[in-house]
Amino acid sequence: MTGGGPAGGPGVPRMRESDLLSRIYAGSRDLEAAFPHVVAGPGHDCAVVATPGGECLLLKVDQLVAGRHFRPHPHTPLDLIARKAIARAVSDIAACGGRPRAALAAATLPPDFGEAPGLFEAMARWARHWGCPLVGGDLVMLSAGQQGPLVLSVSVQGVPHAARGPVLRSGAGRGDAVYVTGALGGSLDRATGLGHHLTFEPRLEEARWLCDTLGDDLHAMMDVSDGLGRDGGRLAAASGVRLRLESGRLPRSPGVREWRAAASEGEDYELLFAAAEGARVPDRCPATGTPITLIGRAEAGTGCVIVAGDGTEVDASGMGWDYAAI
Amino acid sequence: MTGGGPAGGPGVPRMRESDLLSRIYAGSRDLEAAFPHVVAGPGHDCAVVATPGGECLLLKVDQLVAGRHFRPHPHTPLDLIARKAIARAVSDIAACGGRPRAALAAATLPPDFGEAPGLFEAMARWARHWGCPLVGGDLVMLSAGQQGPLVLSVSVQGVPHAARGPVLRSGAGRGDAVYVTGALGGSLDRATGLGHHLTFEPRLEEARWLCDTLGDDLHAMMDVSDGLGRDGGRLAAASGVRLRLESGRLPRSPGVREWRAAASEGEDYELLFAAAEGARVPDRCPATGTPITLIGRAEAGTGCVIVAGDGTEVDASGMGWDYAAI
Repeated sequence: MTGGGPAGGPGVPRMRESDLLSRIYAGSRDLEAAFPHVVAGPGHDCAVVATPGGECLLLKVDQLVAGRHFRPHPHTPLDLIARKAIARAVSDIAACGGRPRAALAAATLPPDFGEAPGLFEAMARWARHWGCPLVGGDLVMLSAGQQGPLVLSVSVQGVPHAARGPVLRSGAGRGDAVYVTGALGGSLDRATGLGHHLTFEPRLEEARWLCDTLGDDLHAMMDVSDGLGRDGGRLAAASGVRLRLESGRLPRSPGVREWRAAASEGEDYELLFAAAEGARVPDRCPATGTPITLIGRAEAGTGCVIVAGDGTEVDASGMGWDYAAI
Repeated sequence: MTGGGPAGGPGVPRMRESDLLSRIYAGSRDLEAAFPHVVAGPGHDCAVVATPGGECLLLKVDQLVAGRHFRPHPHTPLDLIARKAIARAVSDIAACGGRPRAALAAATLPPDFGEAPGLFEAMARWARHWGCPLVGGDLVMLSAGQQGPLVLSVSVQGVPHAARGPVLRSGAGRGDAVYVTGALGGSLDRATGLGHHLTFEPRLEEARWLCDTLGDDLHAMMDVSDGLGRDGGRLAAASGVRLRLESGRLPRSPGVREWRAAASEGEDYELLFAAAEGARVPDRCPATGTPITLIGRAEAGTGCVIVAGDGTEVDASGMGWDYAAI
């Protein structure tokens, strides 16, 4: 996740959060030079930081805000709120090929919210479930005079794959084959507010297996949170290539009839990755059965285009939601 | 910091955040047994987690909420908001005798807040200043229909002192001498909302020097954020001892006339520590000139008492602010 909104809600036209983040990142370009222990700064699914002893660690923070990323409790069950808060950050660890090890959770709660212990207990349970126990937290309850949504902030520390090392967004090269796991679109059930965006399984096993299987042939990876088009554009920009994807190849979730919906709705939390030309990529992860679909190629240029059925190239970098009300 | 509020504002009587956190921590008591890489879970200024290679890391998250921890911008300058957000978490790394290495920052911003880039740039600057560059972040802007305060969540990763290792709250023993750095009270200027709580210097140098100088004779340490009385009670509880402090010894900030104010106003961000009986503790840190004052002893029992001028013992564990409006 990069700060984007949930699948398909109507956005309010303001300065994009991703543009703001880009401005912020622009100030960090010398980070690796100024701080040699920073292996990879902002601009990937996780930052990579080396310990004094030379081990690499993955670091990620992500937020979950009521009314933005889920319909407020009790409309959304507490357990699913907690689950999503942890799962989003865990998904970013997976996207770097890593294994989560520890989590921290901070919550700012509205004055009438009486479920703080249950919320933290559920976050602790889900954090353990994915192998990153909640080792610390912070809690602020807004006073009666203050209004505000429930805000959860979860940071997760992980370790990269021991042999492959951290997989970044920036490693794709011209000629690479581009794949996606699972299926895209339909993450949010607009009638109920529920759906895949609350119950997705972070692709930890698939990512580890890709690292095991492809090794250095796994060039770049990220999770698809803000829509394939927008996130594809980010991977392309980080790698200095152009992604050319084929609309007819995009795997669509049940009920998703248009490739544009699959490419733009977001909150899929699937893995988008680039592998060396000629690398043998199975069409299914053996352990989980998750399908893996070849959807296009990386080539010279910039941006992410999707070739429609009639052969026209659609600029997809602007597809997907940056912010929305759920 | 443990989730407490700022110095001296009037609290609204509700369930204490610290009580909620205690309930949450109670569910984590088996964490070290279930996850051997968790060296110290919730209940200290930082969690301590071991890497696969056996290095110890310190992890901390803390929040800063407008109207709670500072008067909203532009009343409080943006730079001081950013500074405090980073400094609070850095202070907890110092309290464990550590060195900060990397930071993550997440922000949820009110709809009319136009200063996101400046805020992040200032946080990045302060994070670099204390040696923990901002390597990642997340940004959510509330939509026009949503009201809410500015919420910043900062997590910092650090490493403990190489020789001493992580200093926890739980190491104090009977007979230990109890010290505090600097001076207490008066952190918030009630007229302006400004003051020490926005401009304090995290005691990184002092903590490192204490580790260098005292080594294993430095038994327990924490930062004083919610008031000496309340935080003293926490150190006592974590160590299974009673702290007996002397009111006449408490170092008071200029203008603080009553020891009760010094012990309860909070947001001092000074180091409270216990050292072995007989350990030679200088009365000043040579590098910074920060005074170090012997304020009492650890003994058998529970809680934190302060002996008033007339010899009566005052239970100080309940002193200090848990939440307040600034």
